[in-house]
Amino acid sequence: MHRYRSHTCAALRKTDVDSSVRLSGWVNRVRDHGGLLFIDLRDHYGITQIVVDPDSDSYNLAETLRGEWVIRVDGDVRARSDETVNPKLPTGEVEVYARDIEVLSAAGELPLPVFGEPDYPEDVRLKYRFLDLRRETLHANIVRRTKIIAAMRRLMGEAGFAEYSTPILTASSPEGARDFLVPSRIHPGNFYALPQAPQQYKQLIMASGFDRYFQIAPCFRDEDPRADRLPGEFYQLDMEMSFVEQEDVFQTMEPVVRKVFEEFADGKAVTAEFPRIPYDEAIRKYGSDKPDLRNPIVMEAVTEHFAGSGFKVFAGMIERDPKVEVWAIPAKTGGSRAFCDRMNSWAQSEGQPGLGYIFWREENDAVAGAGPLAKNIGPERTEAIRNQLGLESGDACFFVAGVPAKFAAFAGDARTRVGEELGLIDADRFALCWIVDFPYYEWDETENRLDFSHNPFTMPQGGKEALSGEDPLAIKAWQYDMVCNGYEIASGGIRNHIPEVMVEAFGKVGLDAKVVEERFGGLYRAFHYGAPPHGGMAAGIDRIVMLLVGAKNLREVTMFPMNQQAEDLLMGAPSIADQTQLKELSLRIAPAAKTN
Amino acid sequence: MHRYRSHTCAALRKTDVDSSVRLSGWVNRVRDHGGLLFIDLRDHYGITQIVVDPDSDSYNLAETLRGEWVIRVDGDVRARSDETVNPKLPTGEVEVYARDIEVLSAAGELPLPVFGEPDYPEDVRLKYRFLDLRRETLHANIVRRTKIIAAMRRLMGEAGFAEYSTPILTASSPEGARDFLVPSRIHPGNFYALPQAPQQYKQLIMASGFDRYFQIAPCFRDEDPRADRLPGEFYQLDMEMSFVEQEDVFQTMEPVVRKVFEEFADGKAVTAEFPRIPYDEAIRKYGSDKPDLRNPIVMEAVTEHFAGSGFKVFAGMIERDPKVEVWAIPAKTGGSRAFCDRMNSWAQSEGQPGLGYIFWREENDAVAGAGPLAKNIGPERTEAIRNQLGLESGDACFFVAGVPAKFAAFAGDARTRVGEELGLIDADRFALCWIVDFPYYEWDETENRLDFSHNPFTMPQGGKEALSGEDPLAIKAWQYDMVCNGYEIASGGIRNHIPEVMVEAFGKVGLDAKVVEERFGGLYRAFHYGAPPHGGMAAGIDRIVMLLVGAKNLREVTMFPMNQQAEDLLMGAPSIADQTQLKELSLRIAPAAKTN
Repeated sequence: MHRYRSHTCAALRKTDVDSSVRLSGWVNRVRDHGGLLFIDLRDHYGITQIVVDPDSDSYNLAETLRGEWVIRVDGDVRARSDETVNPKLPTGEVEVYARDIEVLSAAGELPLPVFGEPDYPEDVRLKYRFLDLRRETLHANIVRRTKIIAAMRRLMGEAGFAEYSTPILTASSPEGARDFLVPSRIHPGNFYALPQAPQQYKQLIMASGFDRYFQIAPCFRDEDPRADRLPGEFYQLDMEMSFVEQEDVFQTMEPVVRKVFEEFADGKAVTAEFPRIPYDEAIRKYGSDKPDLRNPIVMEAVTEHFAGSGFKVFAGMIERDPKVEVWAIPAKTGGSRAFCDRMNSWAQSEGQPGLGYIFWREENDAVAGAGPLAKNIGPERTEAIRNQLGLESGDACFFVAGVPAKFAAFAGDARTRVGEELGLIDADRFALCWIVDFPYYEWDETENRLDFSHNPFTMPQGGKEALSGEDPLAIKAWQYDMVCNGYEIASGGIRNHIPEVMVEAFGKVGLDAKVVEERFGGLYRAFHYGAPPHGGMAAGIDRIVMLLVGAKNLREVTMFPMNQQAEDLLMGAPSIADQTQLKELSLRIAPAAKTN
Repeated sequence: MHRYRSHTCAALRKTDVDSSVRLSGWVNRVRDHGGLLFIDLRDHYGITQIVVDPDSDSYNLAETLRGEWVIRVDGDVRARSDETVNPKLPTGEVEVYARDIEVLSAAGELPLPVFGEPDYPEDVRLKYRFLDLRRETLHANIVRRTKIIAAMRRLMGEAGFAEYSTPILTASSPEGARDFLVPSRIHPGNFYALPQAPQQYKQLIMASGFDRYFQIAPCFRDEDPRADRLPGEFYQLDMEMSFVEQEDVFQTMEPVVRKVFEEFADGKAVTAEFPRIPYDEAIRKYGSDKPDLRNPIVMEAVTEHFAGSGFKVFAGMIERDPKVEVWAIPAKTGGSRAFCDRMNSWAQSEGQPGLGYIFWREENDAVAGAGPLAKNIGPERTEAIRNQLGLESGDACFFVAGVPAKFAAFAGDARTRVGEELGLIDADRFALCWIVDFPYYEWDETENRLDFSHNPFTMPQGGKEALSGEDPLAIKAWQYDMVCNGYEIASGGIRNHIPEVMVEAFGKVGLDAKVVEERFGGLYRAFHYGAPPHGGMAAGIDRIVMLLVGAKNLREVTMFPMNQQAEDLLMGAPSIADQTQLKELSLRIAPAAKTN
């Protein structure tokens, strides 16, 4: 017989009754039922109930067992009586009567209980992550994560992609966030950088004549702690393909992502065909380029109904500035003064002057608008708004006014809030879409100059002609995001592979050819020796796993995360380097800077 | 029709004749055959011949095309005449008559030719790696690498393993080589380290209750340039499993590795069942714990035949020191004075006093030994040696004498040299084996103390009893290597999961419990809360790929390698960090140290 086990703790069934077996695992818990000891023995695969009766040679030893001890048990499989069958457990029809028990590893008093998963402080959970990871929910999340990633690999392979690893010790590339640097010992004063993403490498792979690249890629950003991102490293499903247009990337990646969602959605509905929503439209309808399409609220401009109306605040704004618009946030079933006032207070707590509203109720067998705005604009305009939005008695509508660029984000938040408060959001769905036609440039208000709105490696729509002719702020990019339930889960673009167009594009944000060559030398050089048109995207794996397992925190889907202070409490990182190491790296620690 | 292609450059066959197609790719080369232009159009998948005749509208443009330009070609598929069919090309029965050509990307004068793959200096190849990677051999090597790794993943999945990623920003762990350090911005003066291997994490994964872990794991070692290792990063097929003994790891991993070899061996024979060779036996038979078993030479001790013999040098050594042995390196077909003298000279060039030999030849219808040694020890002893080793006329034998520990490595080199010189090594085989029963400790001559011979996390054979009782140098470890054709391709062990045994084991090399806790805190802590018996191994992917593609240099199987000075010439790493970055990291560059 095997030294440790004949079966896993999930394997035994009624058909195994009377066989002699050997199991190994962790003591999940011990119960003493009037002399009989019941041990829930747990391993990676499941739980089997062990029974030790007082006649057993192992009874005395069994009495000493405590939670999380690792033991080997030899025993006989017996059927449970009908009333003790546990239908929740695959092994619930049987139990093993222990003949012999061996302690393989004892456990001290647990700083963190495994059984029952009670709430526990984050720092204890991270320091004793090996106990935390034995807990049912986290253990299952991590297993699911490995399966999701394996499915991604399988589906990318089936789509004709090969996985290429790109270097982790590479050059600093000032594309966005802050790099982690790695001092070079052999070249004093010089540093490698960890990649923020394999963006340049994957484009170089295309320029090297490989056609369909993907990678489950570790990425590194030295950012300040943020609730929605773990410090340090994260993983992307990164891909790139040659000789393609935007539509090819969509046709290739939409099925991959949809299949991953379908496979792990646990029965929840997944969007069959992802709508493509232009950026401008997303902003107007949802106040966000990451719209949660489970929320049925679609905003509409209702400017005309307020222009010249008796509601002087809006009417005056509209008169003074032709850019001013009024947007309506229709709120089905929100038609009560109490709800509208609550939304108004929420808006004030968000730093807004308030949130204008109308709500409709039955009055003398007719639907009538109520609230201060309705009074000010009168029944005709109120009715016109109701008709435009298709609202009924019992519904409400909220209004925001101003220059859309300035209020759109708040309007989007209000839309979300209304949807949540009224329970309009269908939690049992994964609503996916593409956002397309992002602006190529944006105006940087602080620096008072043009800047790239997204990835500077993207091809502008219309190519070089668009760059030389039009208003730069009107140029759209071959840039797209994939959004699920209000989260951006992927981002990509068709790349700019023509050096002259690259120089032109960078020129507009004040960077000349020399700077481009300096900053993106490898890639820029490659584009001078025959580069194919190419494009791709990168999907955030941690975020997708979070959505699919329903976790609220990235630490619930990451095996060994750092805490928000970028510390690994389990391994004790970061830590002081000794003088020899610093000397080898030609480094000195600067004296602590004065804090302001 | 698709913007760039209806087919890849490997797709067209005779059945496509007369269809109108669109292809995109690189101009591999252009030939002008009396007015007709022939363009070999290349993409990732293959090559298709394009014909441009002078009547074509695209002729003038086609005349301007140069190597590595990227073009789109619209044209008609025509059958080649019988005499121009190219059987070496899958598309060799057809060619495409160009109707329309579009330049998608021009190329400047090439710093490195792609077609024909002429030899070129390494630094040019690395700086223009995107051109180098388009060359046929390197391109094929990299594709093969991705397939080998995909096969490893598939086979590990089929064996019930899940892939878990372990952190890359982690704690410094003084287990062997030098760490790469990453300064922490948030914790001034503190550093993360890049993992030399996920050793502690994979053991923590076992302690966390996961059962079968694997990972295609990036590993980082800041070592001085070595011919057989790339600076910076390398990849391991890392695995670990719980509730196992050594035999379980063998039963699990031997089929995985064998199948990988079989799948990519290109018809070469692969060992069906890997022999298990104890370390001591490997040293005695092959003079190495990485024996090349394609070499049929097996060494044997022939001490008795020299004890008290007329060859006073050996006889004297044997008499003075009972540890002295004489080892024979039999050399089938090496029986000529010229060859023996050549080996003797080689030994002298290796710093040895020489290499004693006997060779046998036909003399008066009998086999007679020749050479100075044969003369000194006389015909009877010479014949006894010949009989022991099964040698014949036309064979030779070389001898080394001394304390085996001191000469074994040289004897192994001599064995290799003899095998190579005599052409005894069968190049068309992958000869795999396990080396087992490594010594647990070794004597460090410079420090004059005991040290671990291998991984300090390994369980000693005999456990705690062995540690407390025996001569420490006699203890064997549950430690094993997998060897192929003279290269160690994997290494592993059954781990020491009992904290008391760990403390005892480290104690013998002078490290007390406090130091163990300090250095391996996370893991040591985990072992106090119920750890399963576990073991595993790590296989060197780069080395395996090299063996399978027959490459002589790791840079021939790595997409973006650094040069031997640890520089990435393509991306320009490492590079100077700017003052802002250094300030953020609380670092200063130390003034250059004086060189000695």
